[in-house]
This record gives sequence, C-alpha cells and structure tokens, in this order.
Amino acid sequence: MDLNCDLGEGYGVWRMGDDAAVMPFIDRANIACGFHAGDFAIMQTTVRLAKEHGVKVGAHPSYPDRHGFGRRSMSVTADELRAQLLYQIGALQAICHAEQVPLRYVKPHGALYNDMQTDLTLFTQVVQTLGELNRGRAQPLQLMTLAKVQRERELEIAAKYDVELLFEAFADRCYESNGHLRARSFEGAVLDDQDAIVAQALAFSRGEAITAHDGSSLLLAADTLCVHGDNPHALAVVKAIRAEIL
Amino acid sequence: MDLNCDLGEGYGVWRMGDDAAVMPFIDRANIACGFHAGDFAIMQTTVRLAKEHGVKVGAHPSYPDRHGFGRRSMSVTADELRAQLLYQIGALQAICHAEQVPLRYVKPHGALYNDMQTDLTLFTQVVQTLGELNRGRAQPLQLMTLAKVQRERELEIAAKYDVELLFEAFADRCYESNGHLRARSFEGAVLDDQDAIVAQALAFSRGEAITAHDGSSLLLAADTLCVHGDNPHALAVVKAIRAEIL
Amino acid sequence: MDLNCDLGEGYGVWRMGDDAAVMPFIDRANIACGFHAGDFAIMQTTVRLAKEHGVKVGAHPSYPDRHGFGRRSMSVTADELRAQLLYQIGALQAICHAEQVPLRYVKPHGALYNDMQTDLTLFTQVVQTLGELNRGRAQPLQLMTLAKVQRERELEIAAKYDVELLFEAFADRCYESNGHLRARSFEGAVLDDQDAIVAQALAFSRGEAITAHDGSSLLLAADTLCVHGDNPHALAVVKAIRAEIL
Amino acid sequence: MDLNCDLGEGYGVWRMGDDAAVMPFIDRANIACGFHAGDFAIMQTTVRLAKEHGVKVGAHPSYPDRHGFGRRSMSVTADELRAQLLYQIGALQAICHAEQVPLRYVKPHGALYNDMQTDLTLFTQVVQTLGELNRGRAQPLQLMTLAKVQRERELEIAAKYDVELLFEAFADRCYESNGHLRARSFEGAVLDDQDAIVAQALAFSRGEAITAHDGSSLLLAADTLCVHGDNPHALAVVKAIRAEIL
Repeated sequence: MDLNCDLGEGYGVWRMGDDAAVMPFIDRANIACGFHAGDFAIMQTTVRLAKEHGVKVGAHPSYPDRHGFGRRSMSVTADELRAQLLYQIGALQAICHAEQVPLRYVKPHGALYNDMQTDLTLFTQVVQTLGELNRGRAQPLQLMTLAKVQRERELEIAAKYDVELLFEAFADRCYESNGHLRARSFEGAVLDDQDAIVAQALAFSRGEAITAHDGSSLLLAADTLCVHGDNPHALAVVKAIRAEIL
Repeated sequence: MDLNCDLGEGYGVWRMGDDAAVMPFIDRANIACGFHAGDFAIMQTTVRLAKEHGVKVGAHPSYPDRHGFGRRSMSVTADELRAQLLYQIGALQAICHAEQVPLRYVKPHGALYNDMQTDLTLFTQVVQTLGELNRGRAQPLQLMTLAKVQRERELEIAAKYDVELLFEAFADRCYESNGHLRARSFEGAVLDDQDAIVAQALAFSRGEAITAHDGSSLLLAADTLCVHGDNPHALAVVKAIRAEIL
Repeated sequence: MDLNCDLGEGYGVWRMGDDAAVMPFIDRANIACGFHAGDFAIMQTTVRLAKEHGVKVGAHPSYPDRHGFGRRSMSVTADELRAQLLYQIGALQAICHAEQVPLRYVKPHGALYNDMQTDLTLFTQVVQTLGELNRGRAQPLQLMTLAKVQRERELEIAAKYDVELLFEAFADRCYESNGHLRARSFEGAVLDDQDAIVAQALAFSRGEAITAHDGSSLLLAADTLCVHGDNPHALAVVKAIRAEIL
Repeated sequence: MDLNCDLGEGYGVWRMGDDAAVMPFIDRANIACGFHAGDFAIMQTTVRLAKEHGVKVGAHPSYPDRHGFGRRSMSVTADELRAQLLYQIGALQAICHAEQVPLRYVKPHGALYNDMQTDLTLFTQVVQTLGELNRGRAQPLQLMTLAKVQRERELEIAAKYDVELLFEAFADRCYESNGHLRARSFEGAVLDDQDAIVAQALAFSRGEAITAHDGSSLLLAADTLCVHGDNPHALAVVKAIRAEIL
C-alpha cells in the first residue's frame, strides 16, 4: 500500500496546491500532462521535485479540456482517445527520460477516469493504448484505476493487452456497501474528520474491512491510496496518514 | 540529397496544404507537434500517412504560439526551451512508437529555426536537449538546420553533444553570395519560375554551385532540400523536382 | 426572404471557405466570435468586408470549443451560458461600433444552436440574455433560430423578453414531413443537385410549400435562408439562388 | 486620489489573489478580459462583486498571451492591436451592460502597459482605439496610464482623440529622481515596509513630494494609486492605506 497524489496541476503562472509541501510524504506523483492542467515547464519542475524525493512518477492524462479542468465528459472516438493518451504520456515520458527518471504508470484524470469505470469499451481503449506503448519497453507502464469489489472483467482485459493494473482506494471518501464511491451529490460522500480518514487509510493498508455508508463492513483490496495536497487541511491529513503507513 | 516538407500543420477542423497529395513525392515529413500547428489527431494521421509512403518522420517543434503559427520570436530561458522541445518531441515519439515508425530527426519551426541560425547559445540549447533525449536511444535523433558556408561552430557544438546534423537547403529561395538566404523583405527572395527552381534543386543534389543573387557562383553543401506542398503550384514544383532527383 | 451565411470561421493563419467570394451574394453575415472559430483580427476583417458589401452583421457565438469547432454539446449552467454569450456578442459589438456598422442579430452556432432547438430551457436562457443586452439599445438584437411548424412556444418566450425572432430555413437540406430537418445520419439529408436546391430556395422565398422527404407537401414560413460558401460548389449554388431571389 | 487594483486574474479553476477580500477596500477594479487572464465566467463574477461594493469597473486588456500572463512584449500591427483592444473591452462592456454597471475606463496590462510608456506610437494607437469606442457613448472611457513628470505629449495625443487620461502611481514601488519607476532588476525597486508604503501613498494623496531612490524629493501628480491584493501581506497594506485615504 502506498500513497499517490495528483500534482503539477497549475498552468502558466497559476498554481494549484503546494506540490513541494506534499511531495516528501507520498510515494507516487500523478503528473498532469497539459490537457486539463500542467504545461511543459510545470511538468519539468514536478518531475525534478519527484526525483529529488525518490517519488515514483506517473502520467495523469485527461480529455483535452483546460478550461473545464478535464471534469467534463467528452465523446471521443477510439482513435482520438488513443492519440490523446499517446500525446500526453509521450510528452511526460520525454521529460522523464531527459531527467533520467523512469515513467512508471498512467492514471487517467477526472471525467476520463470516471468514464472508464463505467464504460468497459473506453477502459479497453485505454488499456490497449498502454499495451501499444509498452511494446519493446524494458519497464512497462502500469494503469492505475479504481479499486472495485468485482474486478474480473478489468483484470481480463488488462491481461489480454499485457498491462498490469494498480487499484487505488480513497482514504477520504465514503464507500457504499457495494464498494462504489458514494456520489458527491449525496451528504457524507467526503470524510472530513482526520481520525476517520486515517483509520480508513490504515484499514486499507492492513487489508482490513472498512465501514461502508450503511454501517456494513466492506473489504476492498487496494494497491495505492489517493491523497490530496491542495490545501493545508489536506496536507495535515497526508502527514497523519504517512505517520501511520510507512 | 533528399526532399523534406513541413506537414501536419492543420489544427482541429482546419487544414493547411494537402498532405496526402505531397507525401508520395517526399523523403522526410517534418510533423508539427501542437505548439504552432498540429494536434494529437492530426499528428497520428500524418504519421500513418508517412508510414504508408515509407517517408521518414521528424519532429517539427516550435515556440508555444498557435495563434501566430510560431512565427513570432519569443524570449525563453534555456530551461523553458528544453521543456518545450522535450514535450513536443516526446508527444510525437509516443505516437510514432505506437505506429511502429521510427522518429528520426528534429527540425525546429519558424521563429525558433530562424533564431537558432543567428544565436549560437540557442542552437547549443537545442543540440544539448537532443543529446539528452538521445541517451540510451538505439537510433539517435538528428538535428536539421540551415546549410551554411561557415558551419564549423555548429559542427563543433553538435560533436560535443554527439548529435548528428542534417543541413538543409531551399530549392525555391534565392541565396546571397555569402550563402545566406536572401531576406524575404527584398525582391527576388523567392524563386517563382519552376525551371529555375528545378535547376537549383538539381545543382544542390549534384553538389554543384548555384547562382547567387548577384550572379556569382555559390557552392553550398546540403543533405536535404526543403520543399512545400501547401498549394497546387508548390505541388507541381515538388513533382518536377522529384522527377529529376531520385 | 434573405440569404445568411456563416463567415469569419478561420483562426490565426487558418482559413475556412472564401469569405470574400461569397460576401457579394448574401444579405447577412453570421460572424464567428472566437469560441469555435474566428479571432479578433478575423472578426475585424470580416466586419469590414460585410460593411463594404452592405451586408447585415450578426454574431455567431458558440460553446467554448475551438478544437471541436463548437460541434460538441456541452453541459453549461444558465450563468455560464449567459457569460459566454455576453462575452462573444460584446466582443463583436465593439468591433462593429468602431467600424460604424450596426450589430443586428445573433445566431448561435453548432451544438449550441442544435441544443436550443430541443431544449426550451436553453432557448429561454439565450433569449433572456439577448433581452438583457437589448435594454437601452436603440436597435435591439434579433435572435435567429430554426424555422419550425410549431413555433408558438418559441414566440411566447421571445415575446416575454421582448426579443424578435428570425426563422431560418435551409435551401440544401431535406425536411421530414413534420418540418424537422432530416438527420445527417440518414441518406438524403443533404440535397446535392443544384436545381433542386434552387427550387427549394425559391419555394421558401415565395412562401410556397416544399416537398418533404416522404413526398408530402410541407409549408414552412422562413425569414432567412442559410447558404454556405466554404467550397466552389457551394459558392455556385449561392450564386444560382441569388440570381433567382433578389 | 483613489485606489485601483487588478482583479479577476484567474482562469478556469485557477485563482489569483483573493478578489472578495480586497474589493471592499478599493475604488476601481481593473478586470482582466481573457487574453492574459480571466474568462467569461470570472469576468461576470468580478463585475458583480464590484457592483456589490460600489467599485468602479475598468477593462484590463492585454496582448494575447495566457500562458505568459501578458508579460511578454509582442510585435503587433496597429490593426491587430486595435482589434485586440476592441475584442476585450467589448466583451467586458457587454457583461457590464447586462449587470447594469457602467464600464468607465481602460488600463492596459503587463507588457502592453509597459510598451506604451516608452513607445508613443503604441500609446497613440491605444488612445485612438478608445476614441473610436467613445464615439456616441454617453459616458466615454478614460485611459489609465503611468504618472510621469513629463506628460505633455501624452496629454496632447489624448486631447487629439478626445480621451481623458487617469494617471496612476504606485504606493509600493520606488521611484528614480526622474520620476521613472525603479526597474525591478535593481535592489530596492519594491518597497516592503508597510509604514513606508503607507507614507508614500499618503504623500501621493495629498499632492506632496515623495522621496526618490537617491534621496531627492519628487513631485508626481497622480489620480489613482495602484494597490495589490494577491497575498495576505498585500491585503494588509491595502487596508492600512485605505484607513489613511478616504
């Protein structure tokens, strides 16, 4: 179990969160690739910062939607999506190569991430594109996706294209008893209490059940835990989780 | 001596020139990488078209200036320029990788190309970035730059970073007796007559002297000849040159 | 009955269609405002061209989607849509003011135009925004929208906000017997034959019935006819229509 | 003497400074128009906020350079500049109109502001464009520019096009004895000490001399004082100045 965080999400002069503050406490940096956030300069700076702290680097590609921060779902053909992913991952990969840092995985962002959880065709397109990128690579790219109770279909698809999956869980999100994230439109979707968040993180890290929204026990295996560093409270939570999970 | 052409210079729904018409007649496609023109989808289409015709693929990166088509000079730090080049070249490289086409060379575009002809510091930064990208590459990227009479300094810099140069000449541009391109602000800068253009192309291809603007003989060694395919006249010229240079 | 055409749909160095060729044959120029196409310079040039030919100027605003040319539907709040419309219409209005050309109407573009035909809430938001812009205006902006058989609801909404509607029909599109445009996904959606197009245009201009796809007669009142000038064939059609409709 | 502040300088999800915190303490809001910062939604929000606090609204147009925040000088023709200004000012003007807030003045941003201080041709182009916009306007737009010792030429140009000037001074910048702002590349260019800043602001507001960098007295008449609200320290300074200048 390790900690991953979305980073490099500024643009031009604008910044989002304090990357330098959170980097020392995480294991994986999901770096924006310019389509929803990030640009060439911020990507280079963020890769260097990750390298300095020995943090693994992953690409965080999005639908092309800077103004909407990649949160709007978008109808794209398989061919367009492939080109979008290749463009963004390749851009970060070259920066990593020049900085002599390996690019290890890909975590789709925002609406693209959400869409591929419910649309297996889209999920397959993402996996297939990674499979194409992995041809002849010494260290193949992994795909980070949402931890689910039922994950057989995803594992099958990933096996077909020889792509390894990383399942991620959320320390600060409430789960329904079926293992789905509680929708943000409902109350109680996001955990506020630091102790509750740390407890949920600890449970995930120990492979123990967490408590779902209806009070039932939920066992959900996860490889990595998503944390946030975009405000002082979130940063305090990350440090508290880190203190428990080494 | 071979023929290179700038391609993939549309954006979204907009097109520039008829890439499909010119591709069969050229040897090298300089593909725009999204900063002055081109986008993920156009890049993918253009790489496929080049592959289909056995045309070598090169990256055509620019200053970030879509609205000005990369024709505006821009003050950038060495670090910014490095990140701009890595981003663009990497994006195309990943598309090439997925299409199983090698990316072979880099030809900077527009103002960046012009600036590096007169600013050796900038030229060095470009070469150094390619050197960093070439580390561990089986097939290193070459750098295409303007053929000059005096090229010792460029060759020295390229040798230092172990980057091979490709010198390009222009079939349809008039040269001054010192080997510089006649500035576009002067009359006679661009050759219009198809026979004159083909004759100049032939001279370059045979290693013979061309006639400079003042009537003097000018010997200028070149590895590749830049041609254009963005209008029917230009296309006819390319075909005429191709008929002479096999 | 007059002829309207979408113009100024280039961006930066890119052009779409030959505005100068079609302008002499139309009555209304729907000028792109920078969100799907067009930019400050192209808008200025197009307003001048319209002025030169005595063509009425209208704004052609879109969802913010340059890469997709405004063809993608987008979920926007009423407040966002209002701001998008004000921004684009205001930008064109100032250019018109400086050129001493009145801005007369607004025709939403692409997905926004289509969405407001089926979503009366969206239609109302557009009308309301125009109503707000019209406060204190000597010459209020009209709204151009699709001619329909049933138009009571639209007229009611427009009356409520004191906005005048211009109903537009298409010379080169096939209609279903209920007055809807035949969807582009079906064969026969677009008329190719110049004589058929001119005949349909003439029928609209005389207030006569046209022939729907199933052969039935369809009477559809229209104030203005949409024509296209983005290729030589389209231009020939415009000239042929113009020759019949003075 | 009043206080002006650059506001609405976020983009999409990104914010710059805390507009809501500074708005109650200023008299004029210079609102970004989308070229260096700001977008339709932020502009609308900022106009509403200004209205709520009875703050005068001005347009803050820029060269088209979002990634560089308008800080890069750019070579533009008179015609391009005119179109850039009309586009941005018109966009804000329509939002103001719909919000029933008068748009009162224009303050160019960043590199454009700096360039027009040293290039009278550029200054004239800006003034002339405002003159064209002011034709037939009940309340003409004023132009905010840097307070100088020698201002005859500026006043002459402004009179020619019938545009009123607002001269602005800086509370937190050190001046050279000739009345120029001390360049940011030199030490001491920016005042840090709150008392010193308030003292300089007070001197400007009373029409008294300030102390230039070399210790000499400098008398510089100003109509408005530029303050900043983009960090907590800056905000404290604004409140301290406001407490002295009513």
